[in-house]
Amino acid sequence: MARAVDRLGGIIATGRPVSVGILLFPEVEVLDFAGPFEVFSVADRVARRDGLVSGGAFDVATVAVGSRDVRARHGLVVRTDHEASDAPPFDLLVVPGGVVTQPLGDTATLDYIRRAGAAATLTASFCTGAFLLAAMGLLEGRPATTHWDDIQDLRAAHPELQIIEDVPFVDEDEVITSAGISAGIGMSLHLVAGILGEAAARATARQMQYDWEP
Amino acid sequence: MARAVDRLGGIIATGRPVSVGILLFPEVEVLDFAGPFEVFSVADRVARRDGLVSGGAFDVATVAVGSRDVRARHGLVVRTDHEASDAPPFDLLVVPGGVVTQPLGDTATLDYIRRAGAAATLTASFCTGAFLLAAMGLLEGRPATTHWDDIQDLRAAHPELQIIEDVPFVDEDEVITSAGISAGIGMSLHLVAGILGEAAARATARQMQYDWEP
Repeated sequence: MARAVDRLGGIIATGRPVSVGILLFPEVEVLDFAGPFEVFSVADRVARRDGLVSGGAFDVATVAVGSRDVRARHGLVVRTDHEASDAPPFDLLVVPGGVVTQPLGDTATLDYIRRAGAAATLTASFCTGAFLLAAMGLLEGRPATTHWDDIQDLRAAHPELQIIEDVPFVDEDEVITSAGISAGIGMSLHLVAGILGEAAARATARQMQYDWEP
Repeated sequence: MARAVDRLGGIIATGRPVSVGILLFPEVEVLDFAGPFEVFSVADRVARRDGLVSGGAFDVATVAVGSRDVRARHGLVVRTDHEASDAPPFDLLVVPGGVVTQPLGDTATLDYIRRAGAAATLTASFCTGAFLLAAMGLLEGRPATTHWDDIQDLRAAHPELQIIEDVPFVDEDEVITSAGISAGIGMSLHLVAGILGEAAARATARQMQYDWEP
């Protein structure tokens, strides 16, 4: 089977954008979701502007479980586009990090990650979002990473997993995990490069004035 | 008079955090406000954790004019902490960029920037937020910068101003302007370094896994 990024690129080639669903939860880290939100949104803007796509590149939406209103870390309140029960399936599921105590203990959130992850072509975790993928068994048999400050905790919680440190992200085709906070911007650009091509990712980084090398 | 960052550092030395007010408006660029939000919030967390401050370093809040509910660029809906009429004065006013058509044409928003800017010790614009500071006369007699894609437009709109390109930010003591989107993260770290010291800024960047050199 073709690689996940190639299958996502194939969706865009048919004239419809890749749907990106970003899961928000109480105490989600703001830059962990805002970084990917910005990268995929700007990539869509740039791809349309430069005539790279006929029907858009990325359609970015936010989703939460139980209520659309989410209080992120340090108090930023966001009203998401969808509550999990009325959310459409997404081609690309983004699971950010933050304080993951609440979602790790919430059956409905874990169920949503399991369902949405199974429906998605590619699932990407950012920072401590890796704990949520691990809890759902999505990291079994695949190396993964997380925020440097949480590597030991993830190993302790899941001694069966292969947790790698000192890398910005680990790309395992259908499941990608990234290191902490800002690393998510680089990993999102890596995904844009895989899906839309390196030139589009460079144009996105330039539009964001973000120093980026593939 | 002491430099603005030193006066802000002096506030923290008295045992109270510097209040940071981030202005949101319709079509504000998400990373333009989320970057500074994250940097000042993480700096506060790190400063408390490392025992650098007795009463906190930064108290970050969001404010909007007319309604607390703001639809940012690409559709992210945020409920701010304050509506302008009930917002407290802020020590540090942050004016992000984005599509600035709405705020540039809205007297109430411009009035708020004028009032909040006059009350603040330091005003920082990010990206196209410089257009808002320029409209309020806050850039008169001071060099400034903006997103690379908007330099010509800012010069055209304000031929009397000295607009500098190819710099990440321009630090004019009480007024700081930064280049586009991601550049705001670096400029926020520059402010943390000025206010709390370089070690605290480095610890903040490390916590965010953001590659940063002063």
